[in-house]
Amino acid sequence: MAGPNDEFHVYDTTLRDGAQREGISYSVTDKLAVARLLDGLGVGFIEGGWPGALPKDTEFFARAAAGDLELAHAQLVAFGATRRAGVRVEDDPQVKALLDSQAPVVTLVAKSDLRHVERALRTDAEENLRMVHDTVKFLKDHGRRVFLDAEHFFDGYAFSPDTALRVLESAVEGGADVVVLCDTNGGQLPLGLAETVAEVVEKTGFRVGIHCQDDTSCAVANTIAAVQAGATHVQCTANGYGERAGNADLFAVVGNLVTKLGMEVLPTGALAELTRVSHALAEIANIAPDTHQAYVGSSAFAHKAGLHASAIKVDPELYNHIVPEAVGNDMRVLVTEMAGRASIELKGREFGLDLAGRGTEVGSALQRVKELESKGWSFEAADASLELLLRAELSELDGPPPFALESYRVVLDHRSDGEIVSEATVKVHVAGQRVIATAEGNGPVHALDAALRKALLPHLSWLDTVELADYKVRILTEHPKQGMHGTDAVTRVLVESTDGEREWTTVGVHGNIVEASWLALRDALAHKSMRASTPV
Amino acid sequence: MAGPNDEFHVYDTTLRDGAQREGISYSVTDKLAVARLLDGLGVGFIEGGWPGALPKDTEFFARAAAGDLELAHAQLVAFGATRRAGVRVEDDPQVKALLDSQAPVVTLVAKSDLRHVERALRTDAEENLRMVHDTVKFLKDHGRRVFLDAEHFFDGYAFSPDTALRVLESAVEGGADVVVLCDTNGGQLPLGLAETVAEVVEKTGFRVGIHCQDDTSCAVANTIAAVQAGATHVQCTANGYGERAGNADLFAVVGNLVTKLGMEVLPTGALAELTRVSHALAEIANIAPDTHQAYVGSSAFAHKAGLHASAIKVDPELYNHIVPEAVGNDMRVLVTEMAGRASIELKGREFGLDLAGRGTEVGSALQRVKELESKGWSFEAADASLELLLRAELSELDGPPPFALESYRVVLDHRSDGEIVSEATVKVHVAGQRVIATAEGNGPVHALDAALRKALLPHLSWLDTVELADYKVRILTEHPKQGMHGTDAVTRVLVESTDGEREWTTVGVHGNIVEASWLALRDALAHKSMRASTPV
Repeated sequence: MAGPNDEFHVYDTTLRDGAQREGISYSVTDKLAVARLLDGLGVGFIEGGWPGALPKDTEFFARAAAGDLELAHAQLVAFGATRRAGVRVEDDPQVKALLDSQAPVVTLVAKSDLRHVERALRTDAEENLRMVHDTVKFLKDHGRRVFLDAEHFFDGYAFSPDTALRVLESAVEGGADVVVLCDTNGGQLPLGLAETVAEVVEKTGFRVGIHCQDDTSCAVANTIAAVQAGATHVQCTANGYGERAGNADLFAVVGNLVTKLGMEVLPTGALAELTRVSHALAEIANIAPDTHQAYVGSSAFAHKAGLHASAIKVDPELYNHIVPEAVGNDMRVLVTEMAGRASIELKGREFGLDLAGRGTEVGSALQRVKELESKGWSFEAADASLELLLRAELSELDGPPPFALESYRVVLDHRSDGEIVSEATVKVHVAGQRVIATAEGNGPVHALDAALRKALLPHLSWLDTVELADYKVRILTEHPKQGMHGTDAVTRVLVESTDGEREWTTVGVHGNIVEASWLALRDALAHKSMRASTPV
Repeated sequence: MAGPNDEFHVYDTTLRDGAQREGISYSVTDKLAVARLLDGLGVGFIEGGWPGALPKDTEFFARAAAGDLELAHAQLVAFGATRRAGVRVEDDPQVKALLDSQAPVVTLVAKSDLRHVERALRTDAEENLRMVHDTVKFLKDHGRRVFLDAEHFFDGYAFSPDTALRVLESAVEGGADVVVLCDTNGGQLPLGLAETVAEVVEKTGFRVGIHCQDDTSCAVANTIAAVQAGATHVQCTANGYGERAGNADLFAVVGNLVTKLGMEVLPTGALAELTRVSHALAEIANIAPDTHQAYVGSSAFAHKAGLHASAIKVDPELYNHIVPEAVGNDMRVLVTEMAGRASIELKGREFGLDLAGRGTEVGSALQRVKELESKGWSFEAADASLELLLRAELSELDGPPPFALESYRVVLDHRSDGEIVSEATVKVHVAGQRVIATAEGNGPVHALDAALRKALLPHLSWLDTVELADYKVRILTEHPKQGMHGTDAVTRVLVESTDGEREWTTVGVHGNIVEASWLALRDALAHKSMRASTPV
């Protein structure tokens, strides 16, 4: 069943194609969070992954089907391949997995470049056409809506236009209602691509989509050019994340379509959320936001002094290509202070907090978050720290913290034999006692974590299952450096902890990396303690 | 006098427009280094800055004129504005400064949007035309080649095409031989921009250039589209650095022109230097290279496992839009190991080392550099560390290091009153003695630096003038994390030192931030000591 705005498709593949970017590794929890953010923005389609091929993707669809993902705007899409050559579609387990995902929409990728058909698939053009037709029809017969990703389309069309077009025909005959022309190798430039798109639209009359890669640094431009040439379905990823040079950036594409081409491709009010959503998705991906990203970067509207500043004082519109607030951004050169009242309320509800009638407290929590964010704190990917903060502001924390720190000392020895030894001693108050413990580690933070654990374990039974799963450090260069000549750049540490059943992330920010780590570790244990005593 | 390849202009404005990027602050030394790199790549024009308006730019041109900058390919360009309204050109000191710079080429920026003429300049269209004509002619009469930057051209042309075109005419009548259409606000999209460029070329017959900003994420695409529509002069910056969302990336523009449009816009062999030069310029700017940058990013040709990997094994050409080695890149997912024999030799000569007939030693120095670079070391911006390494490999270090470290200890106390205290103790051997010194600091690194200084100052007189000028830390996320669950991410520290006369930068890399800082500090002092004893 088509969604409300079926005339133009904003199709996001952050969770599938975008997830192929080096360094990205989404947990299933991450994927659900990403999907919710995209849905909140109002995209029409969320390609959630490749069920059957990637275990975390299979699980993601299962949890979505089980009700863990409520989508208000988007339809979930399962991505997969046409049946294998020489195999009957009903016997192909990968195709079955697409059905099992229960996604209402399926996108199938098929070769549309003869050289790929012959060399990569090792089959012939005719079998390839049958593979396309069979698989599309099979899924249609089972009630799915089907799109076709025509892989390597532009290269294939240049090499053998007939082959490429017949692949599209085969899909449409099988029941696919959008054929997406993919610049898989990313080598296209806008003028030539637009010509090809216009030609295909004219020759076939099919509903055409576009999927661009950024290898020539033209992905966004190519996508827009394709729309101007007749495409009505655009495939993008958040912040252009993707393999190699990446994909077309969802936010730039949408920003351009709405503000330059006057196309209302998102629900009312969604455009103003662009900046916030871009940053939130970057945090989940654990990638530093690109401060110079079009539309949403924190520097996107920041003009340096000089030629422009005098004119801006006269008339800001003289130098801004759009009004920054339209995309939720602004002209000030500040770090992201993206916490808005609405998102605090949203978060609170996620944490099971009852916020009805508590406007003042929510307001003060918001102030606290903004204050911290201006110093480099970021809660987008540190839900557990945010929950602790909210509960504290709302006086919803039951009981005292599980332990109190009296002091710690971290010693780093570069010994005369050249060996580097890290040792930490903590003095804490726990379960009514004062405990001192010392431990060594691979480095100062590891030593501190080990000492803390040593001190607390005998007294806090739940600590036994808690483990440091991941540790991320980022130097915040956009923050003014404190200390002498920058030796204490503000550092943000994210700690992901696990107890075998769930994972939670906490954050710490300080000019000193060890202290920043301490803050994140402390919150990690406080959160576990809170959950251990508060049934959720 | 026009350069050898005057048919097509590759015009770089890294040092002027690109320098307006937030966070960039080039010293004069940096500017000279940037210019040499760009010249080595073979660009036709290097816009060096705005003499008269910015002191460091004035100094840069002065040093270039004094012989500190030898250009093999490029012509140096001074950027500036047309004379002020109501002032005679010969009386305008800013225009005189352009002449004084002695740059053979001058680019003048002029308003071509009527609204800007009236609201920002507060004058009328006629006076604006006289300002353009007078200034161009004045500079031509003084033997300069003149280009015109028509600011806000596309917006201006859409608002009042006649005004915009008359500005171009006025410049050409004055003697300008290229009129550059600037998308100053960055709001253009490729198809519309190409139409406008074609129209202007057709209506005027002038030689047209293009200057794009990246606010719609289309700067590169717009630049290429403009060339296809008749522009023969492209203005870019290294890595797209610039104000707001940045400028058109020189490397993507050149990569596209050469490999997609078959235009030989660089000297033979230059294309293969693209990746190395891109990274070197990033280091000088102290900006982390974009691993996903088109053509030159370390991930630009890195394919993730899955759909593509199997095909790559079959045929790499099936999935690469170009051969990576053509731009000096490769398919392996590795950090940049860009040190090539040629650059080592080049560097050696810069350091005053005689490398004739020392091929084996150069080879082993290269190996050492590559080995270190694979672990996260980068010497592009740490010339002093590189010089020490080369001299060591070539046995060109006179005498022993100025001091030897026996051990150090750094203690970080988070005290019971909440205060964070950092203290360091060093034990060193210097001037035949064993010295122990302890000092405190704002953080562990500052404390270590203070303690070292305290220990050495009484024994090394030259240390008195040495100061820590800048300290940069970067966590190298592209390196496999060592230690437990990432608590010891490889950290790179760059230390810039000064003695009041010169500045030098050293680097240290280690899983432990304090040890990484130690290595950089040690090199900083060793380099000063070497210079103090070796007259250069």
